[in-house]
Amino acid sequence: MNPIKVGLLGVGNVGSGTFNVLQRNQEEIRRRAGRGIEITMVSARNTERARARTGGSVQVVADPFEVVNNPDIDIVVELIGGYDLAKQLVLQAIANGKHVVTANKALLAVHGNEIFAAAQEKGVMVAFEAAVAGGIPIIKALREGLTANRIEWLAGIINGTTNFILSEMRDKGLDFGTALKQAQELGYAEADPTFDIEGVDAAHKVTIMSAIAFGIPVQFDKAYVEGISKLDAIDIRYAEQLGYRIKLLGIAKRAVVNGTEGIELRVHPTLIPSKRLIANVEGAMNAVLVQGDAIGATMYYGKGAGAEPTASAVIADLVDITRLATADPEHRVPHLAFQPNEMTDIEILPMSEVTTSYYLRMHVADRPGVLADLTRILADATISIDAMLQKEPAENESHTDIIMLTHQTQEKNVEAAILKMEALPSVVGSVTKIRLENLS
Amino acid sequence: MNPIKVGLLGVGNVGSGTFNVLQRNQEEIRRRAGRGIEITMVSARNTERARARTGGSVQVVADPFEVVNNPDIDIVVELIGGYDLAKQLVLQAIANGKHVVTANKALLAVHGNEIFAAAQEKGVMVAFEAAVAGGIPIIKALREGLTANRIEWLAGIINGTTNFILSEMRDKGLDFGTALKQAQELGYAEADPTFDIEGVDAAHKVTIMSAIAFGIPVQFDKAYVEGISKLDAIDIRYAEQLGYRIKLLGIAKRAVVNGTEGIELRVHPTLIPSKRLIANVEGAMNAVLVQGDAIGATMYYGKGAGAEPTASAVIADLVDITRLATADPEHRVPHLAFQPNEMTDIEILPMSEVTTSYYLRMHVADRPGVLADLTRILADATISIDAMLQKEPAENESHTDIIMLTHQTQEKNVEAAILKMEALPSVVGSVTKIRLENLS
Repeated sequence: MNPIKVGLLGVGNVGSGTFNVLQRNQEEIRRRAGRGIEITMVSARNTERARARTGGSVQVVADPFEVVNNPDIDIVVELIGGYDLAKQLVLQAIANGKHVVTANKALLAVHGNEIFAAAQEKGVMVAFEAAVAGGIPIIKALREGLTANRIEWLAGIINGTTNFILSEMRDKGLDFGTALKQAQELGYAEADPTFDIEGVDAAHKVTIMSAIAFGIPVQFDKAYVEGISKLDAIDIRYAEQLGYRIKLLGIAKRAVVNGTEGIELRVHPTLIPSKRLIANVEGAMNAVLVQGDAIGATMYYGKGAGAEPTASAVIADLVDITRLATADPEHRVPHLAFQPNEMTDIEILPMSEVTTSYYLRMHVADRPGVLADLTRILADATISIDAMLQKEPAENESHTDIIMLTHQTQEKNVEAAILKMEALPSVVGSVTKIRLENLS
Repeated sequence: MNPIKVGLLGVGNVGSGTFNVLQRNQEEIRRRAGRGIEITMVSARNTERARARTGGSVQVVADPFEVVNNPDIDIVVELIGGYDLAKQLVLQAIANGKHVVTANKALLAVHGNEIFAAAQEKGVMVAFEAAVAGGIPIIKALREGLTANRIEWLAGIINGTTNFILSEMRDKGLDFGTALKQAQELGYAEADPTFDIEGVDAAHKVTIMSAIAFGIPVQFDKAYVEGISKLDAIDIRYAEQLGYRIKLLGIAKRAVVNGTEGIELRVHPTLIPSKRLIANVEGAMNAVLVQGDAIGATMYYGKGAGAEPTASAVIADLVDITRLATADPEHRVPHLAFQPNEMTDIEILPMSEVTTSYYLRMHVADRPGVLADLTRILADATISIDAMLQKEPAENESHTDIIMLTHQTQEKNVEAAILKMEALPSVVGSVTKIRLENLS
């Protein structure tokens, strides 16, 4: 059988990684797929560089639409990123009857419903293992490996940049700014790190996972997104003393509020018990913990970014597509795990309705009655305290920190209590609130 | 479309788990698979109990061949275990054109080549996710998720019983016998625990993984198998002091010996650095670490046994088969990851040719020159010492323990050195040797 022909849009980091791995392992890959997989055409803004990277045997063009409209191409791999152009190209490829592989989480989290519907109608596949957690086959695990289960929740360290920064802050006692600078110098953070540090990238990824886990459409606009840029080094230390680590988690969870099913979809810094395996995922590594009703907890760990790890996922998709390219569409795995006519519309809950535990830090005057006032406010709100830490004031200091870990309660409940605490004359400044998950 | 019809051989722990999960989650599973999956017939030695467990709507028979020969059955799930009868049944099901799902690692590790060849010829699928690491979708990850990679090695905690015993020995300072008894009382070990504690079960599983990872036939008879029954509690303590934990690992690894490629296939107690994530997999949990050339290290973690976790894997296979049951065989994933005509015959190395690091413990007389003698023997064998620990003799004791960690060397080299050490008059009894892997 002739090799299947692949057109690559973008020959940057992941693009040349994909090219290199396909070249290096072409024999192994062919022996697995039963058919060769060949990149025959690429588009790149810098055609000179693309030519150097693909070594002469590949047609290089500047206009990505030339690839997408080339009748010889069977599969288009979209690696240019961003929204508008990428969307046009992917939709055009689909319209031309081509299968698509993309690593573009932003595109799918925002425009996925439209793209998958178009692919479904045209009978082509859109594969996106590389969009979530780099090389880790988490999409495959969720979509195929755990089909027996009612997925209850998933929680992932799905942004390597922030996990690297948090690991450095904890390990070396750095503040956020210093750790970020270091991450930038080492290439773990981009010059404009906003998407990573503000949690947007993680929210794209958890949005995609939520759709597959629960059979709901992608709804990035309803995700709650909070990054790590305001995280104080002292809270990492206090958390440690209480037996917790702080990780930026992407969480998707079934919940029931007032008798109605809902989905929590949220990204925020989270205290998790240090003894959990996922709490020990350090540096730029990724891990996703999934709780299914039959399997219990299961975790997937590996590199969440980088040229070859991401290429690993792109190529796994190429092999899957190669196997099924000529099969009737009904033999394929549905894009979002559930058959397109079997999706549900369980609502994403607003953050105020989410139930979780909390870490609260109050900076207070060191005088009698303060603790009584604070605990009274929590008791009135029926929020139970699970643990407490009160530091002695430093010498010549008249203020000190009180830290409380609460049992589970609704976000709006805690918000109301915090307002009351902040109104106390003995509480200085605002109360620091970080969510806490036991993940058990 | 009508539901696909499943016949279940064996309604024990996993069998009734499979029945229950399929019942409980039938809607979710149908929404994913695009077609219902129904157990319509079961065979069991105890038909009374099977009837109670399957609740009346299912045909219960005593003779498993009735299921296998029933023309209405599309897929046979083999959960009776063992070799002879299971093999007959599986081959008969294949001959009858039925797809097979099995959790029987022993069967596949020993007779897999014959079974897969028969299935290939008949154009049916034999799926076995449940045979390795319970619910963890490790077969799918290796076979489909990592297709881009040349797999370099894999190392797994793939027997929950032994991992539970080792965790208890370390946590509570128990000796092997006591920890085993506890595991038996808690249901983590069987009355006859031989297969588990002697490493046979782990060897079955790593044999299957080696075939998928490297494209070689299953060759259980060539696996090196050493269990944990002779492990001394003191070595767990010394390892801990040196920054290591002892785990029973199943290891499959590419190696080159004298310019020739070979495969290491081995199960034995192994020191691994405590800081590795996999070293922190405790109790009855399983985890498999896989090193691919593109993706780097990736790990899969979850419950390796139990009714519903194993059922999770059985049902994932049922869904995969349901999707592809009516597709041409060429669209399917090959049983052992590589196309059947694309397997290789790289040889499994004998243990004497394996290269690894070692933990050596010598019980020696506390007198001058002992250390010089021991280190001279290692130096003569060009074995470098990576770390050493010498304990002070206990009061009124004239003997003490010396522990050495070596750099990598060949097993036969270490064996020869140990013989020389044991011949020294100052060395009492035999030298304890435990292999050490850095897993980096």
